[in-house]
Amino acid sequence: MNTLEISEVFKAREVLKNVARMTSIIGPTTLSDNCEVYLKAECLQLTGSFKLRGAYYKISQLSPEEKKKGVIACSAGNHAQGVALGATHNGIKSLICLPTTAPLSKVEATKNFGADICMVDGCYDDAYKKACELKEEHDYTFIHPFDDPLVIAGQGTIGLEILAQLPEVEAVVVPVGGGGLISGVAFAIKTLRPEVKVYGVQAKGAPSMKLSLDKKEKVCLENVKTIADGIAVKEPGELTLEMCRKYVDEIVTVNDDEIAAAILALMEKQKMVSEGAGAVALAAVMFHKLPVEGKKVVCLISGGNIDVSILNRTMTRGLVKSGRLVALTFDLPDRPGPLADITRIVASLGGNVISVTHERASSVTDINSCFLHIELETRNHEHVAEIKKKLEEAGYRISN
Amino acid sequence: MNTLEISEVFKAREVLKNVARMTSIIGPTTLSDNCEVYLKAECLQLTGSFKLRGAYYKISQLSPEEKKKGVIACSAGNHAQGVALGATHNGIKSLICLPTTAPLSKVEATKNFGADICMVDGCYDDAYKKACELKEEHDYTFIHPFDDPLVIAGQGTIGLEILAQLPEVEAVVVPVGGGGLISGVAFAIKTLRPEVKVYGVQAKGAPSMKLSLDKKEKVCLENVKTIADGIAVKEPGELTLEMCRKYVDEIVTVNDDEIAAAILALMEKQKMVSEGAGAVALAAVMFHKLPVEGKKVVCLISGGNIDVSILNRTMTRGLVKSGRLVALTFDLPDRPGPLADITRIVASLGGNVISVTHERASSVTDINSCFLHIELETRNHEHVAEIKKKLEEAGYRISN
Repeated sequence: MNTLEISEVFKAREVLKNVARMTSIIGPTTLSDNCEVYLKAECLQLTGSFKLRGAYYKISQLSPEEKKKGVIACSAGNHAQGVALGATHNGIKSLICLPTTAPLSKVEATKNFGADICMVDGCYDDAYKKACELKEEHDYTFIHPFDDPLVIAGQGTIGLEILAQLPEVEAVVVPVGGGGLISGVAFAIKTLRPEVKVYGVQAKGAPSMKLSLDKKEKVCLENVKTIADGIAVKEPGELTLEMCRKYVDEIVTVNDDEIAAAILALMEKQKMVSEGAGAVALAAVMFHKLPVEGKKVVCLISGGNIDVSILNRTMTRGLVKSGRLVALTFDLPDRPGPLADITRIVASLGGNVISVTHERASSVTDINSCFLHIELETRNHEHVAEIKKKLEEAGYRISN
Repeated sequence: MNTLEISEVFKAREVLKNVARMTSIIGPTTLSDNCEVYLKAECLQLTGSFKLRGAYYKISQLSPEEKKKGVIACSAGNHAQGVALGATHNGIKSLICLPTTAPLSKVEATKNFGADICMVDGCYDDAYKKACELKEEHDYTFIHPFDDPLVIAGQGTIGLEILAQLPEVEAVVVPVGGGGLISGVAFAIKTLRPEVKVYGVQAKGAPSMKLSLDKKEKVCLENVKTIADGIAVKEPGELTLEMCRKYVDEIVTVNDDEIAAAILALMEKQKMVSEGAGAVALAAVMFHKLPVEGKKVVCLISGGNIDVSILNRTMTRGLVKSGRLVALTFDLPDRPGPLADITRIVASLGGNVISVTHERASSVTDINSCFLHIELETRNHEHVAEIKKKLEEAGYRISN
């Protein structure tokens, strides 16, 4: 079977009714300055991402014989957790091949959902090769992360929910990696409400679907590089490429800084944890990449499984980008006074000192000078400029 | 008016219908090992906390004359944002007194909701004094953060929502600071469904309501100290103390480490950002402080307005507490080799090095030795112990 009927999506909805959460649509929010943004919060889904829907539905439709043999998948992320939980709920065995480079937290989560784990030395491609070997050897069913009509039907249930939860929606914006999510969502929406726009967003460092649509043939990238690891995919699927061509209005890209800013906005303004891939739809709207001015727009926040240490770094980057955190480095004469003077000036202007590194006569400074590095919490870029100006007027040389 | 009728809570629900979000109940979750935990996600409320409900309802019920004069409040946090948005929506002027020590992010948020800001040198008490002066001078209406029947009625709408969204609920767990939230929620629930248990949770460093109930008289604490700044209150209100005595089954406390662990669990497992005060109900359930074994329990996550830098620190603390981050310090002989050897051992056991500080012959080490500090990502406490053991067997002395 290589085509999809809308009845399959409705059937998936029935199967998923008591398994997947019908996640909230949150909004209207103040996340965009030129349109009304709503969030479909699939980061609040069980397993922390939409992937459960497609994987569960696919597994539920296996024959008794296939179920008995069990399923196999290869993933370092959300698909692994979806397959693990889907298999466990259906009472069948799952084996997940993971590269040894996968983050520990994801390996643990997958184990906790009941999967057997096969750690493979190397990268994703090595794990995939191993999974194919094991599939042949044991006759497991391979659960593809996106290029499968039943997986796509499962993801399509999100489209049905959006139409039911916000009938007045005018545009839906969806993250795109291999294309399974947007294929399902766009298919459901365009079949039922063709006037609603469906836009896709890829990471600038992994734009395989966009390039494939532009070139009208499947493009396979040699390298992908983005903080949105969930959509760092080298090539689209056959079926998903075909469905995107038919049902998606436009695909745009966003860069890592834009993604980090969207993650921070979701945390601070909406109290939601999004992973990089989960935030690209919002990033595209925040940074005006799409023709949605004045419209009611649903951004699909596809998942929230971000590594805590990466989240920490992203938050810092987002704060710096928005002028709320700044690091200043000075070369100072090594005599008493300047440190007290500088911190007094900063405090008088409402800057909040977070850290101070003060080093005398190191190998990188003159023998008679000393090095001062301070990190400040600030209000915005204007505030930073004001503080720098006052410090320079007081005779201090800022070396960064 | 110093008593409350249930009709007032229903009236508040009508007034708030098109203003406050009916926040989701998320669950069942896997956050507890001995009961079925659901989350009432008020961190997803507009303004990031439940405070909007009470403040908005109170403001909506002012006389035309009072509205014309405007309102004043004193708060460094959620109440300020609730009053600001409530006043702006009702088309009236609000003035918020904030201590200069308030985090910049909260000052900005309050301003953005349309309030005028009066920054007062000093701490909360100084800002409160200033607010009282300004109230007298300009005849503003003072909006109390908790000890007001209309504010309590507004918070009580959460109780109505919980009963409607999860009729089979058996216990509701609520954060307690001044007691406005729990008074409203307990009043609504005990009036309509007296068999449902209502428990309160305070921070161990700010247990004024618990002590007041135990001693049967209002206790005023000299100092409060907790990471849950939203419930760091020195004394309960008159009315809230009376209502807690009548309607609350029990109040327990949790410490800062337990709160940090709950914040981390909410982020990692539920993709929700909670502030300290917002996480205490879950902390009490996670650490078995309440008799809820086997029950269907709703934990009220009251707000998500946590400062990003505090969140960063909390995440780190939570990771260390759960054995997923560890820092090791060594005294090493200053010759080539040990750094490479140590990192090889760590890597062979699956530990992931995050940072290395390597310092030779500083003033704190022997002249011929050097100091090595490494931070590792680990799986759990057993994994940490295994790595330490192997390093010690290889002859390295770990000094922490």
